[in-house]
Amino acid sequence: MSAPNAFYAQSGGVTAVINASAAGVIEESRRNPQQISKVFAGKNGILGALNEELFDTSLESDSDIAALKHTPGGIFGSCRYKLKSLEENRAEYERLIEVFKAHDVGYFFYNGGNDSADTCLKVSQIAKTMGYPLKAIHVPKTVDNDLPITDNCPGFGSVAKYIAVSTLEAGADVKSMAETSTKVFIIEVMGRHAGWIAAAGGLANPDIILFPEVPFDQSKFLAAVDSAVKRQGHCIVVASEGAQNADGSFLAESGTVDAFGHKQLGGVASTLANMIQSELGHKYHWAVADYLQRSARHLASQTDLDQAYAVGAEAVKYAIAGKNAVMPAIIREPGETYAWHLEMAPLSKVANVEKILPKEYIREDGYGISDAGRKYLQPLIFGEASQPYKDGLPIHANLKLKLIPKKLG
Amino acid sequence: MSAPNAFYAQSGGVTAVINASAAGVIEESRRNPQQISKVFAGKNGILGALNEELFDTSLESDSDIAALKHTPGGIFGSCRYKLKSLEENRAEYERLIEVFKAHDVGYFFYNGGNDSADTCLKVSQIAKTMGYPLKAIHVPKTVDNDLPITDNCPGFGSVAKYIAVSTLEAGADVKSMAETSTKVFIIEVMGRHAGWIAAAGGLANPDIILFPEVPFDQSKFLAAVDSAVKRQGHCIVVASEGAQNADGSFLAESGTVDAFGHKQLGGVASTLANMIQSELGHKYHWAVADYLQRSARHLASQTDLDQAYAVGAEAVKYAIAGKNAVMPAIIREPGETYAWHLEMAPLSKVANVEKILPKEYIREDGYGISDAGRKYLQPLIFGEASQPYKDGLPIHANLKLKLIPKKLG
Repeated sequence: MSAPNAFYAQSGGVTAVINASAAGVIEESRRNPQQISKVFAGKNGILGALNEELFDTSLESDSDIAALKHTPGGIFGSCRYKLKSLEENRAEYERLIEVFKAHDVGYFFYNGGNDSADTCLKVSQIAKTMGYPLKAIHVPKTVDNDLPITDNCPGFGSVAKYIAVSTLEAGADVKSMAETSTKVFIIEVMGRHAGWIAAAGGLANPDIILFPEVPFDQSKFLAAVDSAVKRQGHCIVVASEGAQNADGSFLAESGTVDAFGHKQLGGVASTLANMIQSELGHKYHWAVADYLQRSARHLASQTDLDQAYAVGAEAVKYAIAGKNAVMPAIIREPGETYAWHLEMAPLSKVANVEKILPKEYIREDGYGISDAGRKYLQPLIFGEASQPYKDGLPIHANLKLKLIPKKLG
Repeated sequence: MSAPNAFYAQSGGVTAVINASAAGVIEESRRNPQQISKVFAGKNGILGALNEELFDTSLESDSDIAALKHTPGGIFGSCRYKLKSLEENRAEYERLIEVFKAHDVGYFFYNGGNDSADTCLKVSQIAKTMGYPLKAIHVPKTVDNDLPITDNCPGFGSVAKYIAVSTLEAGADVKSMAETSTKVFIIEVMGRHAGWIAAAGGLANPDIILFPEVPFDQSKFLAAVDSAVKRQGHCIVVASEGAQNADGSFLAESGTVDAFGHKQLGGVASTLANMIQSELGHKYHWAVADYLQRSARHLASQTDLDQAYAVGAEAVKYAIAGKNAVMPAIIREPGETYAWHLEMAPLSKVANVEKILPKEYIREDGYGISDAGRKYLQPLIFGEASQPYKDGLPIHANLKLKLIPKKLG
């Protein structure tokens, strides 16, 4: 009897390095052919399992799999699809197990954030209930950096590096033009619920950071902007898309309407810019990094890339060792020099627990990061991951992505 | 009698590589101490000359000057300040000459775009009229890529690379999420008057490019977006900030008002996104690269960097050879393999002439670049300029920037 197959799926918002985790899973599986026959990957994440659309990664060459390490996005497709609770939709979980059974899948690697950790745990439970032998291992990934136990989440370090570098570079631009041109520059960054990414901007020493965790105070903000402009001629602002008023409403939803009276979904940056324009009159510019920040593999953190690969490979080791309902967590070692290793964390302690940005990482005035915040963040952006190029453009993996024949209806 | 000094100034919007041109001017001057004593740099461009605020670059170490090659922004400060015509403000030109005379400046290197080429020419003329011996050489720079004679402008290649790479990377992100999430992604790029930068996005093969040169047709655009989404599940749009309606009005000015009825200065990307949302209902995301695109030294084109340095150094050679009112122009050599050299162009043929994006670089349907456009653009993004880092962040030059004592009132 041959070894069982594995199923790997990408979940939720993708990152610059999620495909490195895929490479970790697939390459480590290939190193253990006695334990794992083939790795199937879900087309568009868990939907691929539900729809029995499984890519056969065994048809991909070693070099094509290695190329995943320098390919952003989710190569197999990801999805925003949260399975309901077992009580609400047991049939969906049973369908998963049916598909796994049909394709002799004994290992389930789920690469995602909080929701997928929860799903992974539930799948392991339903498999047990149904008497199906399955090892379900979660592979952490999220630019939101909000998973517990793990010191940080693969994907975050590269966004952090992108935002820090971009803020530094744009700051140099604004500084040189401020005498006769733009005086205030705002960069809007991701993080609807937590200020982890905004905090990363702090590594570039902007004048003001707006965190979701600190209620927005318009007059205090405008005074801080004006003070920076008067003191040094310019002001650099990093604004989280999740910045909010004291009443909990998002700044981005402060309500603009188009010429026809339709409500416009604005951004934080443009809202702040208009505020600065009308109250202070300073010339401004703003940028919205949006997906650029989480897909910028060309500027990925080597530390992040290493960790993303490592959690993928480690997950396979756990599975082969017979572990179930666990996740590799990144543990920061004590000492001044940054070092890390992986430890096994039970999913029961990960699922549905959100790690928030510690208050002590935010500077007392609420507009910057503290020394503790800097100490936490800085090592996560260490190192520049190499990226091969051809004709001036990045070379990305070009997989065959061949689906295996369906066996079920 | 010692050799005369040189004056160097940065003008207009800065680029990721304008400081490489500064390094070219200063290093080439240092290689010719018999001809050029010191290089002074204007604090905030030409304003530095008018205000007699001159940085003494001779106080900077060789390694600090070399570091300019990997430092974005304008290290000496730039400005948006256009001298009026000789007739309107002759006194301002005479003031320049007075300052040059006071500090024994025999060479004027002006690093900018169209306006500064014109200023440089006028300064050379007034010097002649006043009997002051001055060699005025223009050093081309502009992300707008609109200078004539030169095949391309230093600064443009790096923006082109940034937009092409960013579009490619974000495209990979969107493609992987489209099944259950974002289906349309819009990246807004610079180029108020010409579509050179938007065209560069074409190197990443987006589905739609909106050029300022092609009048916007809403129903045709929406049909193209919908068709891409239906065909492949997603649509990537590169939109020039200068995209405009058939009547010449900018899309970005299509008029939104805030909750208080104030007119909002919107962006093209958000305007298009709202249009797509209300007419097609597709989930969208948008990014505005803004200054990030012209300050991204971390992703600079090696070709661009080489050319930016070369035009600076060449300008010094022209000056030493006694040339006046000229500019080094980049000449593309014939043949399949990209090669270039510099040739001297008279400023009389450069000033006030704008090179527009040729119609034949735009694809017939108006939504992409042609093979000719690709052939022109691709070599300009060749090569990845190295960038030193420390603790995960780029190392930028840290100059002393010491002003020389004033001699005038």
